[in-house]
Amino acid sequence: MLNVADEFNAITEHFSPRVIAMANGQYFKLAKFKGEFPFHSHADEDEFFLVHRGEFTMCYRDREVVLKAGDFHVVPRGVEHRPRATEEAWVMFVEPAATRHTGDAVTEFTKSIAQQISHLA
Amino acid sequence: MLNVADEFNAITEHFSPRVIAMANGQYFKLAKFKGEFPFHSHADEDEFFLVHRGEFTMCYRDREVVLKAGDFHVVPRGVEHRPRATEEAWVMFVEPAATRHTGDAVTEFTKSIAQQISHLA
Repeated sequence: MLNVADEFNAITEHFSPRVIAMANGQYFKLAKFKGEFPFHSHADEDEFFLVHRGEFTMCYRDREVVLKAGDFHVVPRGVEHRPRATEEAWVMFVEPAATRHTGDAVTEFTKSIAQQISHLA
Repeated sequence: MLNVADEFNAITEHFSPRVIAMANGQYFKLAKFKGEFPFHSHADEDEFFLVHRGEFTMCYRDREVVLKAGDFHVVPRGVEHRPRATEEAWVMFVEPAATRHTGDAVTEFTKSIAQQISHLA
């Protein structure tokens, strides 16, 4: 598939990243956000987010950023954050291939890279 | 601004990239495509494209790929390509900060990085 709506439609689980492309060592991922993800950070990796549909809130320890369809946002490396979505939001994000999406925390949400790219096999 | 539609609306010239964010040494850029860009390549840099509105054709020496709203595409490093748009298309693309958007070719379209990020100053 080469269309983000088609790729989103193939996602059946919340907070389960699906890799759609790689370029320059970065993975381009889609996920459906719903609920509250655990706080985590990535020491050496920034994360770029772009909302495709719906809205979600990026929560930091000291502030919150509401992101609606078409809004983009970069979480700088090393900063604790967690996304929260009351209703389902469709989100594209971009991060280095090495990034673990739950950071150093291993939680019920943690998906290995193998799981995230399994549909490409 | 933190919304891609607002950023696109600020663009007044075709094939003139506008940097909207940087993460992990990659620039996230927007451009309005209309007309035919010169053939060029980037020896060490892949380019990720995502169509926000309209459609355009990515032309290679031996094939063409038509990309419509929501379609994404990666041009691998080292491969000659040029975008062509009959009607105006709004396109996001992601490439290393060092990438020159016209590759090794310097043409009437060439914009320096300083020009591409001037609105952030």
